[in-house]
Amino acid sequence: MPESISKGCPSPVTWTGRTVRLLDQRWLPARETYVDCDSSDAVAEAIHAMVVRGAPAIGVAAAYGLALAARNTTRLDALAAAGQRLKAARPTAVNLAWAVDRVLARCKTEQGLAADVLAEAQAIEAEDLRANHAMARHGAECLQGTVNVYTHCNTGSLATAGFGTALGVVRQLHAEGRLGQVFVGETRPWLQGARLTAWELAMDGIEPTLIVDSAAASVMRSGAVDVVITGADRVTADGDVLNKIGTYSLAVLARHHGLRMMVVAPMSTVDLDTTSASEIEIEQRPAEEVTAWNGERVAPQGVSVFNPVFDATPYALIDWIVTEQGVFTPPAS
Amino acid sequence: MPESISKGCPSPVTWTGRTVRLLDQRWLPARETYVDCDSSDAVAEAIHAMVVRGAPAIGVAAAYGLALAARNTTRLDALAAAGQRLKAARPTAVNLAWAVDRVLARCKTEQGLAADVLAEAQAIEAEDLRANHAMARHGAECLQGTVNVYTHCNTGSLATAGFGTALGVVRQLHAEGRLGQVFVGETRPWLQGARLTAWELAMDGIEPTLIVDSAAASVMRSGAVDVVITGADRVTADGDVLNKIGTYSLAVLARHHGLRMMVVAPMSTVDLDTTSASEIEIEQRPAEEVTAWNGERVAPQGVSVFNPVFDATPYALIDWIVTEQGVFTPPAS
Repeated sequence: MPESISKGCPSPVTWTGRTVRLLDQRWLPARETYVDCDSSDAVAEAIHAMVVRGAPAIGVAAAYGLALAARNTTRLDALAAAGQRLKAARPTAVNLAWAVDRVLARCKTEQGLAADVLAEAQAIEAEDLRANHAMARHGAECLQGTVNVYTHCNTGSLATAGFGTALGVVRQLHAEGRLGQVFVGETRPWLQGARLTAWELAMDGIEPTLIVDSAAASVMRSGAVDVVITGADRVTADGDVLNKIGTYSLAVLARHHGLRMMVVAPMSTVDLDTTSASEIEIEQRPAEEVTAWNGERVAPQGVSVFNPVFDATPYALIDWIVTEQGVFTPPAS
Repeated sequence: MPESISKGCPSPVTWTGRTVRLLDQRWLPARETYVDCDSSDAVAEAIHAMVVRGAPAIGVAAAYGLALAARNTTRLDALAAAGQRLKAARPTAVNLAWAVDRVLARCKTEQGLAADVLAEAQAIEAEDLRANHAMARHGAECLQGTVNVYTHCNTGSLATAGFGTALGVVRQLHAEGRLGQVFVGETRPWLQGARLTAWELAMDGIEPTLIVDSAAASVMRSGAVDVVITGADRVTADGDVLNKIGTYSLAVLARHHGLRMMVVAPMSTVDLDTTSASEIEIEQRPAEEVTAWNGERVAPQGVSVFNPVFDATPYALIDWIVTEQGVFTPPAS
């Protein structure tokens, strides 16, 4: 690989030659365990179960999932069917569909299929890592002096092929000696901020301050934050950003407090076929993610739960959308 | 008692004649257990440990705590010392200090001390219940037609002498057949919304929809909410509202979406000795409330945590402060 992932954080997806090895992110930071997937359907199941999460990492995992499928078949229709099942595992993230379609587009003939699929998966992984380093530089250039950051969910090595999107910008600021405080929202219901981002940053010697999501407004009001930096699961043609539930809330709060809002996402996240967020069905996850903790109920039996995974932030609330190809700013900004 | 507490919800504080019996709210809804406190210091410890919580309920518990102290002493200075220890158990909520001071103010002589203290504690309890019913009527009168509500934390029977403050308004709307949807934010880190409010409403046949706190903005944007209704732990002379962390966030989000913000709190919550929220030290609670769940760590060892229990909402973001004596509206509203 051209550049280091990060000093200490393990890779979320590894091609072993016979399996796709996934770091099981459901148990971090308590336990560092791995799931070896020996078929594309096993990869699809692991994506659905959130063994691996983070839009770019899911894309890499799915591409390698197709490499597993191509070991057992030379039929293009069978490979396409495996791709469909992978795409259905998480419907909102666009990188997943993008990675599957990119691999399938390369496969024109049955000859040398396994090698072609593997080469494309490896290219996707390597390009994602390069894109992350480019985004980190572009993002840091938008910000002046010492920067106090608020970030949400996990957008680091664990969510990508390495280095990260929003967290790549944080790493870049740190490398330049310009990183002030980093506040990390715990990111309910899955606690990616508490479980993954705090863990990953600590490995790089960056000490974040963890807060509950609803404390973000108070922290902003206190003057301790300059910019909110998040990733994206999908960016529409109109510039609407689909991202982890809570991102829209942070964008509204940032605007109210006169802070800046930066979204960092590779071009593979941009979905020009979708005009605006209103066209996108937002994935709902099981009520149990909210009503139970570690097997113990924390809400009464049978309570209604609304558990959307993502929300939509309109372009007008965003100051910068940072991609590897450059930075977009809304017209009014 | 003059009016029913609620159909099915147990009382958070009961004077048994020999003990102050507290419903242990830390384990609800999984287990309904009680803690019998046989001294004022035991009550103080239970308040600090959040066996009982909710500003008015804490005030009632502290008043009965003094009734326990008065069984063992006729010395006014010993009673005052017990009062000081009770007040130190939760520094931000003003009802606690108010209730202790009110009981102590009644105790002028050592004669009949135990009976006087008990009578004052019972008066505080009865008045709180009456105040809640009055606030419920005043609050509901501010709102027209069918009302879709977002509420936060627990402000119901479990937080008061009965019926509730913000949740009293929800009960009143329900009784009048004007209650639409009720969204309840889970209220991290303690999950009072998930554990207590959802449980308490279900007993009254009101079916709320539970969401993670960071989903409030999306729900508001979808048009499903008309008004945010919360309680208060302290209201300053300038009208600033100290309440559960996340309240300020909801007030900003409500304003952004053109929704109304109602705060419901008895006059005992109003602290005219404090001009604005900036003068108030906000209680910080242990990091473990954020970093561990049911004994399992969900954040890396040693991570920094900022865990304020309350935030401050400026009067300008509030449409109505509802008390038993009437409704306050900010000048610009």
